[in-house]
Amino acid sequence: MQNFDFYNPTRICFGEGQIAKLADLVPQDAKVLILLGGSSARRNGTLEEVKQALGERPQFEFDGIEPNPTYETLMKAVAFIKENDVDFLLAVGGGSVIDGTKFVAAAAHYDGEPWEILQTFGAKVMSAMPFGSVLTLPATGSEMNSGSVVTRKSLKAKLPFMSPHVFPQFSVLDPVKTYTLPKRQIANGVVDAFVHTTEQYLTYPVGAMVQDRYAESLLKTLIEVGPKALATPEDYNVRANLMWTATCALNGVIGAGVPHDWATHMIGHELTALHDIDHARTLAIVLPSLLRHTKAEKKAKLLQYAERVWDITEGDDDARIDAAIEKTQAFFESLEIGTHLSDYELDESHLDALVDQLETHGMVALGEHQKIDLDASRAILKGAL
Amino acid sequence: MQNFDFYNPTRICFGEGQIAKLADLVPQDAKVLILLGGSSARRNGTLEEVKQALGERPQFEFDGIEPNPTYETLMKAVAFIKENDVDFLLAVGGGSVIDGTKFVAAAAHYDGEPWEILQTFGAKVMSAMPFGSVLTLPATGSEMNSGSVVTRKSLKAKLPFMSPHVFPQFSVLDPVKTYTLPKRQIANGVVDAFVHTTEQYLTYPVGAMVQDRYAESLLKTLIEVGPKALATPEDYNVRANLMWTATCALNGVIGAGVPHDWATHMIGHELTALHDIDHARTLAIVLPSLLRHTKAEKKAKLLQYAERVWDITEGDDDARIDAAIEKTQAFFESLEIGTHLSDYELDESHLDALVDQLETHGMVALGEHQKIDLDASRAILKGAL
Repeated sequence: MQNFDFYNPTRICFGEGQIAKLADLVPQDAKVLILLGGSSARRNGTLEEVKQALGERPQFEFDGIEPNPTYETLMKAVAFIKENDVDFLLAVGGGSVIDGTKFVAAAAHYDGEPWEILQTFGAKVMSAMPFGSVLTLPATGSEMNSGSVVTRKSLKAKLPFMSPHVFPQFSVLDPVKTYTLPKRQIANGVVDAFVHTTEQYLTYPVGAMVQDRYAESLLKTLIEVGPKALATPEDYNVRANLMWTATCALNGVIGAGVPHDWATHMIGHELTALHDIDHARTLAIVLPSLLRHTKAEKKAKLLQYAERVWDITEGDDDARIDAAIEKTQAFFESLEIGTHLSDYELDESHLDALVDQLETHGMVALGEHQKIDLDASRAILKGAL
Repeated sequence: MQNFDFYNPTRICFGEGQIAKLADLVPQDAKVLILLGGSSARRNGTLEEVKQALGERPQFEFDGIEPNPTYETLMKAVAFIKENDVDFLLAVGGGSVIDGTKFVAAAAHYDGEPWEILQTFGAKVMSAMPFGSVLTLPATGSEMNSGSVVTRKSLKAKLPFMSPHVFPQFSVLDPVKTYTLPKRQIANGVVDAFVHTTEQYLTYPVGAMVQDRYAESLLKTLIEVGPKALATPEDYNVRANLMWTATCALNGVIGAGVPHDWATHMIGHELTALHDIDHARTLAIVLPSLLRHTKAEKKAKLLQYAERVWDITEGDDDARIDAAIEKTQAFFESLEIGTHLSDYELDESHLDALVDQLETHGMVALGEHQKIDLDASRAILKGAL
């Protein structure tokens, strides 16, 4: 096992009816800005429930944080906060709203041009405004971690940052709030959580037995609940397990003491930035091809994955690995998520621009061995045509 | 899944050499009291390493916290703290030293007779001194939770308390520090972690898929590393996995959103209080008999346990359950831990006093259904003769 430093102070209030707890979770004297994405929280009553729980506290709303939250939009929230002396932020939405709120929380305290927060991956964040979240979409895990991804539209750049200052103080997770989500978003959430898990699991063995088994627990649960979450949207327990699995996939527990490989995410980010493909779909495109490309390096863990997650025990090493990758890809497709670039009307002519973007963003040595250079990324994208 | 509230702000610094981090973890201007158990930390160099990392900070030492920390001893530490204006506590040792430090931290701030902290199970704790820990014995999980058990010798009472104010700020876990532990303590640690896990898992199903699989992950890991930890004490990875498993067994994660059954612990506590049997050994005595006694209520989870943890798939329900309980008992025995009261020279004549103690401490409705009354506890103890 590798050495690690684990810290996660976010409080989770999980279950039906937990939004009422905001009355105690948010400081009594807070001046609150509620940050929102599209109109769904307004339409389905979640916002009303939140406002009721906040009671007499002064409340403002900031609407329109995009699915891939943009620096341009978020900086408007920062200006609003300064004008109105807001002192507590409450994200109500999915991972994008929470990611956006993290950036706003850090940018409001940042001394300098806040784009630097992303250019330095969060290293220069020294403090942030306090905030909490009400999660409505199980997917990114942002509700219980200190990471965020922000897009700067004008530069077509999508960059991550991390800082211990941007853990949510609390997150409220009510599975009922996911009942009205479109199927497409639920399917995206399943894939997002799945790939978060593989990025921390499908590398090379370091003898981290708990972390490996925990990761396998999450993957098996996603395989079990994913299709049910699409088929029976109002099954509380299915949605509860999906929601908690997605949180656990990126709250630091399975990633402590093991190597990571965020190459699928980094390559995927460029597909979103250039072609506006849903984040999870970019992961479904990249992962199978990446696993085929890195089969040799990842051999031991792929064999473990084949046996423990997919119960594949027949055939030689190569056959078992291939079968596991195929099952992974078929699982994504079963959720009606295309796993080829051609499903999104992209072909070989689009590869150059994608690789150029990777170069621009310094993504030239990805993967757990830093061996995925630009040529390898091109080959992985080509493998996904 | 049941609703839950999860919060665990303890930072974990895990791995060889991490004690050096105390230099940053402890506030620079702190006046530190180091709390110790027996002489092992002094003998094996751990204390020296700790003192070196603390550097120029004013340091005191408080020795002699017992394996079952006593109110009588701990109150001396409280008096010392007040006399010397100590403002930070550092527990160096196993679960008993950390449990004791939690009580000291709460008692030093307590307005009233600190025994009330235990009489009210922590409900009246409104604040506590800040503290951290350096763990030397993997077992109790105290390094990453807010629970503590304290014995009052004069009353032969062993009582637990919990409070969000007594989470360690940090815990340093260096597996190398466990190399010199006696086999007996390692075996105890394996059993302690195992039973912590079953107390949160072997109840009734509530569809908590992640929590169940995580619990099974810990049990399987203990079954795998337990014997190796005894056979090859200096295998870093074995000790690392044992150490992290024991922490994960009681840090709140597997217990979130599921029913609990702490009956084995509560009955076991009386065995320690009256007959001074090691805590883990009392669990090994009580658990198999308790599972046999509650087979009907726990049927569904026992069947899941048989299949997923012990790979038992042959035979009818009863046979599979019996086999799983037998395997559990044999596992404890394989670690040279006696699972019968007779192994500790106790017989039927000792049962009355044990049951009386349970009554005195209000332990009259134990288990996940509060159905283990005094008669049931007597039957469980009798089943363990």
